[in-house]
Amino acid sequence: MSHRIITISREFGSGGRTIGKEAAEKLGIPCYDQELIEKIAEDSGLNKDFIREKGEYAPRGSLFASSFFYDRSYTGFNVQDLLWQSQRKVILDLAEKGGCVIVGRCADYILQGKHDLLKVFVYASMEKREERILKVYGENEEAPRKRLEDKDKRRRAYYRLYTDMEWGQVQNYDIALNSGELGIEKCVDILTMLY
Amino acid sequence: MSHRIITISREFGSGGRTIGKEAAEKLGIPCYDQELIEKIAEDSGLNKDFIREKGEYAPRGSLFASSFFYDRSYTGFNVQDLLWQSQRKVILDLAEKGGCVIVGRCADYILQGKHDLLKVFVYASMEKREERILKVYGENEEAPRKRLEDKDKRRRAYYRLYTDMEWGQVQNYDIALNSGELGIEKCVDILTMLY
Repeated sequence: MSHRIITISREFGSGGRTIGKEAAEKLGIPCYDQELIEKIAEDSGLNKDFIREKGEYAPRGSLFASSFFYDRSYTGFNVQDLLWQSQRKVILDLAEKGGCVIVGRCADYILQGKHDLLKVFVYASMEKREERILKVYGENEEAPRKRLEDKDKRRRAYYRLYTDMEWGQVQNYDIALNSGELGIEKCVDILTMLY
Repeated sequence: MSHRIITISREFGSGGRTIGKEAAEKLGIPCYDQELIEKIAEDSGLNKDFIREKGEYAPRGSLFASSFFYDRSYTGFNVQDLLWQSQRKVILDLAEKGGCVIVGRCADYILQGKHDLLKVFVYASMEKREERILKVYGENEEAPRKRLEDKDKRRRAYYRLYTDMEWGQVQNYDIALNSGELGIEKCVDILTMLY
């Protein structure tokens, strides 16, 4: 059976997860985030920190020299691919349960054509995201801008590898929200209205 | 004095103009479109068809070989630049009058920093835009897809030349709406809500 599902792709620090959670709460539907990680851990046997980090990001460093790609050239399959398979299975199973919000993890791509999706992209300027991560995560040894650029780059690489699509390219979404300009609350209102 | 102004950039055939008009009507503010062309005609002495066509589009053909660029290399200034200057002046003057909606013509770039802008990008898939232009403009000698691709390409080139920014790149906007998926009415509702 097909359900109405909101998938949220977001730039790191844009507040996309918060928007997803608050919209789900208003709509009285589940928002899968921590639960997703727990289910993937159960299904795959991988540990939660690995899933949290590697289920959305290509590894650090020069991408083509990294083990991420290197391992695959020998075996055609690596632990990252195992995670992808498990993640895909868990997302498909959860979606079968009914309407929900799913944050990140290429859910838009995985559920395409199977459910009635509202595909959302949340973004903000570098300055607004810097402000937000300092506020939410506190000071960090790493410069916030460097951290943001690194996260963006790795998320884009991950998305491209597994979906063969461009992350953040507006044509792949139904709506794109600049949370830095609109504010979190207005973004939540819009998603609630569109559901 | 600074006013709240909605600027709409849109892909050809996405219904961006209709969304702008209907949102303005609901909000009880003017939507500048035809009036813009008339004022530019008065100000510049150029004819309306020229303004309609050349105020948003780079000319057809290989862009770098065209007279658009060629003329400029001799005089540093051509009729297209005259139009740009006039367009800029008219948009700045109209914006001074109060809150409004302005469709196209790089108004987002021209008014940036001068007014309280809601910068909107309206887009849709090629298929949905084909459907729409056939419905709105009727059958055309030129294949609709070719016409859409040509319009997109020339609008992008025009925008880049005069603003030095990428047209349709989401980071330049506050919100991007896929009118083909959301429908015209929902897009109007969102703009009304955000004003």
